[in-house]
Amino acid sequence: MPSKIQRYKHDLPISYTLGATLTYEMIKCRPEIVDRVYINSDTDTGSGIARVLEIAGENGIPVEKNDKAFNILSPKGNCYVIGEFRKFRAPLEKGNHIVLVNPSDAGNMGTIIRTATGFGVKNIAVVRQAVDFFDPRTVRASMGAAFHVNVEYFDTIDEYIERFPENKRYAFMLTSSQPLTDVEQQAPYSLVFGNEATGLPDFYADICRSVRIVHSHDIDSLNLPMAAGIAMYEFTKEFWRQ
Amino acid sequence: MPSKIQRYKHDLPISYTLGATLTYEMIKCRPEIVDRVYINSDTDTGSGIARVLEIAGENGIPVEKNDKAFNILSPKGNCYVIGEFRKFRAPLEKGNHIVLVNPSDAGNMGTIIRTATGFGVKNIAVVRQAVDFFDPRTVRASMGAAFHVNVEYFDTIDEYIERFPENKRYAFMLTSSQPLTDVEQQAPYSLVFGNEATGLPDFYADICRSVRIVHSHDIDSLNLPMAAGIAMYEFTKEFWRQ
Repeated sequence: MPSKIQRYKHDLPISYTLGATLTYEMIKCRPEIVDRVYINSDTDTGSGIARVLEIAGENGIPVEKNDKAFNILSPKGNCYVIGEFRKFRAPLEKGNHIVLVNPSDAGNMGTIIRTATGFGVKNIAVVRQAVDFFDPRTVRASMGAAFHVNVEYFDTIDEYIERFPENKRYAFMLTSSQPLTDVEQQAPYSLVFGNEATGLPDFYADICRSVRIVHSHDIDSLNLPMAAGIAMYEFTKEFWRQ
Repeated sequence: MPSKIQRYKHDLPISYTLGATLTYEMIKCRPEIVDRVYINSDTDTGSGIARVLEIAGENGIPVEKNDKAFNILSPKGNCYVIGEFRKFRAPLEKGNHIVLVNPSDAGNMGTIIRTATGFGVKNIAVVRQAVDFFDPRTVRASMGAAFHVNVEYFDTIDEYIERFPENKRYAFMLTSSQPLTDVEQQAPYSLVFGNEATGLPDFYADICRSVRIVHSHDIDSLNLPMAAGIAMYEFTKEFWRQ
């Protein structure tokens, strides 16, 4: 009997990887969370999908032919493999962190996770209200990097600070007078970014060292993933130089 | 009689700005290209839209109530102002350039234009095949920065090099052994980026100095706007420090 498929919802204990590359990356990183892999009648198992089936087999993960899964989860029909996984707990480790305050866009969060993984800042704190880390759109935009990071949600920034008081906090704010290029970097650090439309509330300048990426007045701001990516590049470049 | 509206196509001489902020930014930067502004029956002229109507009035741009325009150009219905503009010619000036080789995604191109405008690199060369600079999706993702830059399309990179032989070309390639952090920067420069999926062809290493943004093997690559944004940040930061 085929498994019962539900459209993704925030309060479900499971989520999905849409696509072969993403599903492969998940099984490689976190095989223990994967419940099953769905393929459909159109899936050409001779193509790049073979390696997904192989790694699923190696890890004892069932593969199920289920056309309904694709109708429900990928109605546009450009997807031939779906992975179903149990949402995992991955508490933050001590060290350098990214802190996202009220991020509202799944694609942006995914892009930030991808970049953070690239630069080795693999602990991401999220302050609510916030978009869902496990939303299939977040996972997809991360290109699988979501399975490489630790993530924890906090109700307030105070709750985060209480857990990691030793971290030096750098808040990226358009109103700051401190250019990123001149900031004195101290580890362990937390790079703190606000909402796409509204940025960080003013009081973050009191609880963090505020920093600005200097640019012309021809634009209102850099977009959020761009600001976060440039900040991570600047804070990690000495490490990657070695 | 209301104007005849067509869905956007690459070969039309006109394009559209979808949204009030975008339309305002266009009229502020390039009033001479704007044919007219459309509003619809739902447009609340008491809100942020008032300043669009004001700047249109100041520039003698006709404002037309036209519900059809919104049905055709913004069927999702989250847009209350549309600007119609004639595609403009804005030849590249000598100086520092961004060169996009075969970019395929309108959103990515718009994000790069926004970032380039922010960092003051306002001349963008595009090597075909490539996405359309004037596509409403590109213009929208640029958040209006598309009206601040010069842009020219070239059929080949050779054609571009012939026009600007004095520029030092830096090609961003995953295969390069030269980290961005250590590259010797010489102006005027051209920062050259390849297609989202395939990057730059190998021969670019022969006609440019190749450069790499070093990151971990946990990701295949940074996404294209991110790589371009980090490169621009690194190449312009001494300027913005002053």
